[in-house]
Amino acid sequence: MDVFLKDTERIDDLEFKGLKIIQDKNGFCFGIDSVLLSDFAKDLPDKSNVLDLGTGTGIIGLLLCEKTKLSKIYGIELQEAVSDMANRSIKLNNLENKFEVINCNIKDLTNFFDIETFDAIVSNPPYIKNNSGLENINQSKLISRHEISASLEDFIKISFKMLKDNGTFYLVHRSDRLVDIIYLLRKYKLEPKKIRFVYSTQNSEPKLVLIKSKKNAKPFLKIDKPLIIYNSKNEYTDEILKIYNKLKEV
Amino acid sequence: MDVFLKDTERIDDLEFKGLKIIQDKNGFCFGIDSVLLSDFAKDLPDKSNVLDLGTGTGIIGLLLCEKTKLSKIYGIELQEAVSDMANRSIKLNNLENKFEVINCNIKDLTNFFDIETFDAIVSNPPYIKNNSGLENINQSKLISRHEISASLEDFIKISFKMLKDNGTFYLVHRSDRLVDIIYLLRKYKLEPKKIRFVYSTQNSEPKLVLIKSKKNAKPFLKIDKPLIIYNSKNEYTDEILKIYNKLKEV
Repeated sequence: MDVFLKDTERIDDLEFKGLKIIQDKNGFCFGIDSVLLSDFAKDLPDKSNVLDLGTGTGIIGLLLCEKTKLSKIYGIELQEAVSDMANRSIKLNNLENKFEVINCNIKDLTNFFDIETFDAIVSNPPYIKNNSGLENINQSKLISRHEISASLEDFIKISFKMLKDNGTFYLVHRSDRLVDIIYLLRKYKLEPKKIRFVYSTQNSEPKLVLIKSKKNAKPFLKIDKPLIIYNSKNEYTDEILKIYNKLKEV
Repeated sequence: MDVFLKDTERIDDLEFKGLKIIQDKNGFCFGIDSVLLSDFAKDLPDKSNVLDLGTGTGIIGLLLCEKTKLSKIYGIELQEAVSDMANRSIKLNNLENKFEVINCNIKDLTNFFDIETFDAIVSNPPYIKNNSGLENINQSKLISRHEISASLEDFIKISFKMLKDNGTFYLVHRSDRLVDIIYLLRKYKLEPKKIRFVYSTQNSEPKLVLIKSKKNAKPFLKIDKPLIIYNSKNEYTDEILKIYNKLKEV
């Protein structure tokens, strides 16, 4: 299927079940965090009605369409141009029946959907607190990386609201935000059930954390064994190669 | 120095700077968790006034007297017989000027000390929520392991109260209680600054977690590289050997 491409856009082959994705070389391209989250969330129940908060290029939704038997996934993306690009990627992969991206602020979600109607929510939100960290001059990248239009608390609050009782929330974030994340998840009754830390190498500090929470669940946490990205030869570990399935990070 | 020993008690050589400890073979003997906490807390400032909540045999206080330049450490132990045994260990090591164990419930601490007078607090509290887990018929072990007389929230609440502004709280606990721990620390303004997970082996789930928090501090968390206990030959790793300094776990 032919789709429209802007001058600065290109089509990348995900080398996974024929999936392709449109990315803007001047914009925010997907990273390993989204690929790891898609894999972490692949245990979501069959026929799930899913929400992806902060969709970006659509990478998570595209991968979940192939990795799971979800019924429908809606991506929510604040930036109109990015949202449009993701919808063209969906068309490129003939996934219009399963995946749709809506251009809105996550705080306005109740204008589009009834509350408590989703079985699962996935999110790779902006990692950096507003007014902290180095500011990125590219406006599109800025919104993707910083909590400008919605804070971590907004992402968690709206997730509680949109999930059915006992629904699942999958989050990837920077591990140095762990205290904020856990405090807010407990506060909004999204009880963390499984945590996995992602380490560059076996002997490094973790950089990312994957968290699976359940709405209104009782406390019981399992912390998985470490997920290591590079082995001692500085090559991807077998687990990462398996997750990537030769999928190239862009 | 000669000290009184009961029939079921024995003196164990800690093989660390000549330290010895009295333990009751029918009671709760110290484990690797206390040794790791003492090492984790060895960065406490010189001349600190320190509190150890739930002292047990006194292992943490004994080690901290040798590993740091603290001014004074008070151990708080609920069980009279255990508290008495710890005080005899202190005498055995001629540490009466630096270390003293007080027999009381941590909830009654303000009867003994002024609030906001401690520079640092260490604690290896009971790990198991009351009414959960297998009950242990030995009453002394039960109190050491279960939150019967004081809950995790009690330990954290009183720590906030007793610490000076910016004072440090060092905690060891089971990593499956991480959500409870982090939620309560943030709630009581003991901001977690450093977390280290303890793994049996390189490829296992963590069992223990070490957390250093600062009273009224701003959020910024560092998660350390994993602390691994056994190498692939099922021997202690070099890091553990260094911490133990040939110290034998009983």
